[in-house]
Amino acid sequence: MAEFVNVVALGGLDEIGLNSTVFETQNDMILVDAGLMFPEEDMLGVDIVIPDFSYIYENKDKLRALILTHAHEDHVGAIPYLLQNINVPIYGTKLTLGLVKAKLKEFKITNVQFVEIEPSRKFQIGDFELEPIRTTHSIVDGVGFAITTDVGVIIHTGDFKIDQTPVDGKPFDMLKFSEYGSKGVKLLLSDSTNATVKGFTGSEKEIKRGFLDIFSSAKGRILVVTFASNIHRIQQVVNTAIETNRKVCITGKSMVQNATIARQLGYLSIPDNVLVCEDEIAKFSDKELIIVTTGSQGEPMSGLSRIALGEHKNIKIKPTDTVVISAKAIPGNERAILKVINTLSRKGAKVFYEGNSNVHVSGHASQEELKLMINMVRPQYFMPIHGEYMMRRQHASIAEELGIPSRNIFTIDNGDVLTLTKDNAKMEQKIRTGRVFVDGKGVGDVEDVVIRDRIKLSTDGFVVVIVTVSNTTGELLSDPEIITKGLLYEEKSQKLLHEATMMVKNLINQSGVDLKTDAYEIKKKIRKAMNKFLHKKLMRNPMVLPIIMEI
Amino acid sequence: MAEFVNVVALGGLDEIGLNSTVFETQNDMILVDAGLMFPEEDMLGVDIVIPDFSYIYENKDKLRALILTHAHEDHVGAIPYLLQNINVPIYGTKLTLGLVKAKLKEFKITNVQFVEIEPSRKFQIGDFELEPIRTTHSIVDGVGFAITTDVGVIIHTGDFKIDQTPVDGKPFDMLKFSEYGSKGVKLLLSDSTNATVKGFTGSEKEIKRGFLDIFSSAKGRILVVTFASNIHRIQQVVNTAIETNRKVCITGKSMVQNATIARQLGYLSIPDNVLVCEDEIAKFSDKELIIVTTGSQGEPMSGLSRIALGEHKNIKIKPTDTVVISAKAIPGNERAILKVINTLSRKGAKVFYEGNSNVHVSGHASQEELKLMINMVRPQYFMPIHGEYMMRRQHASIAEELGIPSRNIFTIDNGDVLTLTKDNAKMEQKIRTGRVFVDGKGVGDVEDVVIRDRIKLSTDGFVVVIVTVSNTTGELLSDPEIITKGLLYEEKSQKLLHEATMMVKNLINQSGVDLKTDAYEIKKKIRKAMNKFLHKKLMRNPMVLPIIMEI
Repeated sequence: MAEFVNVVALGGLDEIGLNSTVFETQNDMILVDAGLMFPEEDMLGVDIVIPDFSYIYENKDKLRALILTHAHEDHVGAIPYLLQNINVPIYGTKLTLGLVKAKLKEFKITNVQFVEIEPSRKFQIGDFELEPIRTTHSIVDGVGFAITTDVGVIIHTGDFKIDQTPVDGKPFDMLKFSEYGSKGVKLLLSDSTNATVKGFTGSEKEIKRGFLDIFSSAKGRILVVTFASNIHRIQQVVNTAIETNRKVCITGKSMVQNATIARQLGYLSIPDNVLVCEDEIAKFSDKELIIVTTGSQGEPMSGLSRIALGEHKNIKIKPTDTVVISAKAIPGNERAILKVINTLSRKGAKVFYEGNSNVHVSGHASQEELKLMINMVRPQYFMPIHGEYMMRRQHASIAEELGIPSRNIFTIDNGDVLTLTKDNAKMEQKIRTGRVFVDGKGVGDVEDVVIRDRIKLSTDGFVVVIVTVSNTTGELLSDPEIITKGLLYEEKSQKLLHEATMMVKNLINQSGVDLKTDAYEIKKKIRKAMNKFLHKKLMRNPMVLPIIMEI
Repeated sequence: MAEFVNVVALGGLDEIGLNSTVFETQNDMILVDAGLMFPEEDMLGVDIVIPDFSYIYENKDKLRALILTHAHEDHVGAIPYLLQNINVPIYGTKLTLGLVKAKLKEFKITNVQFVEIEPSRKFQIGDFELEPIRTTHSIVDGVGFAITTDVGVIIHTGDFKIDQTPVDGKPFDMLKFSEYGSKGVKLLLSDSTNATVKGFTGSEKEIKRGFLDIFSSAKGRILVVTFASNIHRIQQVVNTAIETNRKVCITGKSMVQNATIARQLGYLSIPDNVLVCEDEIAKFSDKELIIVTTGSQGEPMSGLSRIALGEHKNIKIKPTDTVVISAKAIPGNERAILKVINTLSRKGAKVFYEGNSNVHVSGHASQEELKLMINMVRPQYFMPIHGEYMMRRQHASIAEELGIPSRNIFTIDNGDVLTLTKDNAKMEQKIRTGRVFVDGKGVGDVEDVVIRDRIKLSTDGFVVVIVTVSNTTGELLSDPEIITKGLLYEEKSQKLLHEATMMVKNLINQSGVDLKTDAYEIKKKIRKAMNKFLHKKLMRNPMVLPIIMEI
C-alpha cells in the first residue's frame, strides 16, 4: 500500500535532453527514460552529457525497473552509463528495445533483462500498475504511460504529437487518454518541447508531397539526409522512391544499423528489389538512385559532411545531384549546417532544406495538440516536462487558460520532489541532480573548473613562465623561459616574448623574494605582472602559469 | 577615358559581412563600403573580422573615395582599420556619415574628409559618375548607386528591400532604377541575403500591429530590445508608446549614441515629454514605461543580458515585465538568445520574440523583390553579391529564370576580377583577398595556426612536460615536471600524472638519446609517447609541449 508517490526529474526540466524521471513510493522506485544531452557550445571538448544518477544509485535496492517511452537519444542515450553502476530490468516496446540492445552491444554490456511491452497491455511493477498508451512521434513505437497507484493515476505522455495520418497507420490513442481522463487523473506530465509553437504540428505524411515534388523533378541522383532514428521518414523516402522508379541505398553506420533493426522487427518495409548496397550504386544510373544518410546537423564526421567535402569513399557530389536535408536544425548547429550547404552548392548540387522547402515536420505537439492532451486527461495537477524553462512556462500558461488553477501547476526544477498523497500534492524536498560530462573515456572527471580553463584557453591561449632556481642557494639558474600557444602568431611574437622575459627577470631580481622558500609569492607576482604586460601590449588575457623548478 | 572597369569584391561573396567592393579603371579607383564580420564560432577569441585591404593599400595612389551605402557594421565597421593605413575622403548620406563620424571618434581618428551625398544628386569622381538612389532597409538613409562609366552603367543595390510603406514615408525609388534600366545597364550587383526566402518581405510598418497588441495588453513595464542602428524600429516603439500613453527610456551606450545622432539629424522624432532618462524611471509607474535597449543576440555584455542577470545598475526584472525581442537571431546566436529568454522567464517576465509573435521583419529583399529589381534594371550582366555561396547561387537561378543567360551571370568569389569593356565582360584575373582577425589590440597577429591551437586547447587542454638537463654533462637534473590545464579535474589527475612522469623518465633513460645535442629528437619521442598514453587512458588528445631546459 503506497502512502505517497514522489515524482522527481533527474533531467529534462532545464534543457532539451537528459529526460529521466523517477516515480517512487515508500516501497518501490521506477525510472522512466535515461536520456543524454548533446553538449552546449560552452561545454568545450565534452562529448555528451548525462544526468547525475546518484539518487538512483543510493536507492538501488528499491529500484525495480527502467521504463522507456521511445528510443531517441535524449530518452535512452544515458542507459549504457547508468548500467555501468547498477543492473535493472529494462521495459520497452519492440523497436525501442531493439535499438537499445544494439547500443548496449556497442558498449559491450551484457546480462541485461529486457521486458517487451505493448500498447494497452497493463503490467504491474511493485506499487505501480503501468499501461502503455500508443502515441505518435518522429520515431516509431513510442508510448506514453498511465501509472496507476494507490494515491491516484499519473499520466506521463513521453514525447508526442497527435499525428492524424501516421505513416504506419497506427493512430495516437485518444480514446485511452480520454478514458483515463473520464475516470480521474491525479497528475499529468506532458511534453513541452513545442509549447511556444502556435497551431497544430503537421502530419509526418505531409512530407510526402514535398518529397514527391523534389524526387519527380530531380534530373540526377538524390541524397536524402535525416536522423537515423526517423524510421517513418525513411519509409516515406522508400515509398516515394518506388513511385518515382528509383532504388534506395542506405549508408552510414547508424543509418544502416537502425534500418536493419527496423526491417527485421517489421517497422520498415523495403522490397528487396528496391534496396541497393553502397558497393552496387555504380551499376545504376544517377536518375535511378536515392541515397539515404545522416549528417543533418552538419556533424563533421557524418555521411553528409564527408560526401560534401569529397572524403567519402564511394559517393562524390556531382553537379546534377539533388540533396534533401529532411530535419530541423538543433539550436547551435545552424552555422555548421549552412557550411555544408555552401560546400554542396559550390559543387553544383541543388539543396533543399527547411529554409527553402517543405521537407520536414516536427515530432512534437504544438499548442493546439497540447490543449487537446490536457482536455482529454483533465488532470487535477499538471507538471510540464521536457523543455527549457520558457517552454515549460508557456505550457503552464496553456494549462491555466484551460482552467487548471495555477496552484495546481508545478513548473518545478530538476531535483524538486513533487509528493502526491491521496489528498494533495506538494513540493517540499529536493534531491541532488546535475549534469555529468562524458569526455572520451572519462565520466565526470571533467567538471566546471576544467571547462572554465578550456574556455580561457580557447579565447587567448596560454603563457607558461619557467623559472629555474638552485635548491641550495635559491639563485636563478638561467633566464626565465616563456612558452606560449594560442596567444599570437609565433613569427610576430619574438620581440614581445623577449621583452616579457626581461620583464620577469627584472621582477625576480628586484623582488627581494627568496625563490626557494617563497615560490608561491613569486608565482603570484609573475602572474600579475605578466597579465598586466599582455593586457597593455595586446589587450588579451591568456592563462598565465608560472613554474618554479628547483634543481 | 576609361578603357575598362574592373569590379572586384574584397569581401561579402562568401559570408554575411565584410562587404567591400572595388571599382577601378586604369586611372581611378573607388571602394564601395568597408564592412566587418562578426567571428564565426570556430574563430576562437577573435573580436571582429575585417577584409584584407592589401589591394587598396597597393593602389592607394589611384584610390579616390570610399563610398558608403548605409551605416550597418557589415558595411562600415572596417573603416577605422582601413584608415589606420590610408587617408581617403568618405562619401555618404547625412545619417550614414553621422554614425561613421561617431565611430571614428571612438577610435580617435581625425583629419578625415567627409562628403555628404543625397539621393538623386549626381557627383563625379575621376572616371566615375555616381548617382545615389534611395532604397529602403532596416536602417534609415540607405542608398544604392548607379555608376556611369565609359564602358556602361553599373548598378550596385547596397542592402535593400522594397518597403512600400516605409516608416519615414520616403519610398524606394523604383522610377530611378527603372529609368536606368530603360536606358541600358551593363552590370547589376544585387543583395542576395534573402535570396532563399520565398515571397515578399513585409513592410517595417507591419511591426506596428505586433507592438500595439503587446503594448496595449501589457500590465507592467515593457522592455524592447533591438539593434541600435534600427532607427525605424525605435521610431515605431516611440509612436506606439505615444498611442498607449507610455514614456520611452533609451538605455545602453550604442543605443543612446545612435538615437541621439538620429534625433539631432532629424531622422528620429521623439517629443521631449515622451523621453525619459534612465535616472528618472523610478518617478514613473511601470504601466507608464517603455525601456529600449540592445542585446537581441544574447551578447553577454549587452543591456538585456545584464538586466536579465540582475547586473544592471538601474533596471531589475520584475514578474510583471514584458520583454519584446524585436530582431532576428543571427545564425550561431540561437542558444545565447534562448539562455537570456530562459533567465527572463524564470524571473516571471513575459517574453515575445520571433518564435512566438510578430515583432520583427527582415530588412532584405525576398525572391519577389529580387525579381522586381532585376526586371526594373534589366542588366546585360548580373553579379549576385552580399551572401554565402548558396544564397548567391539561388539569386543567380532567379536571374536565369528572368531571362538573363547563364553565361552573363557571374557567381564569382572574393578577389575574382570582373573586367568590363564596351564589348564584353570576363573574369580572368584574381587579386589577393582574405579575412584579417582583430583580437584586442592586434590586427592580423592571430592567424590560422593560432586559431587551430586555440581549437585544440579548447577541446582537451594542454600538457607541458619540462625536462631539466645539465648543459655540461647532458644528464637529467631532476624528475620531469608535468603541468596540465583543461585536461581533467585536478583532484582526479594525481595518479595519472605520476604514472605519466615515470613513463617520461623511463623513456628518457632508455632512449639513449643525448639530451644536450638531440633535444629535438627527445621532444618528438616525449610528444608521441605522451599522446599515446593519454589516448589510451582517457581517449583525449590535448596539446603536448615538451620543453628541455639546459641549466
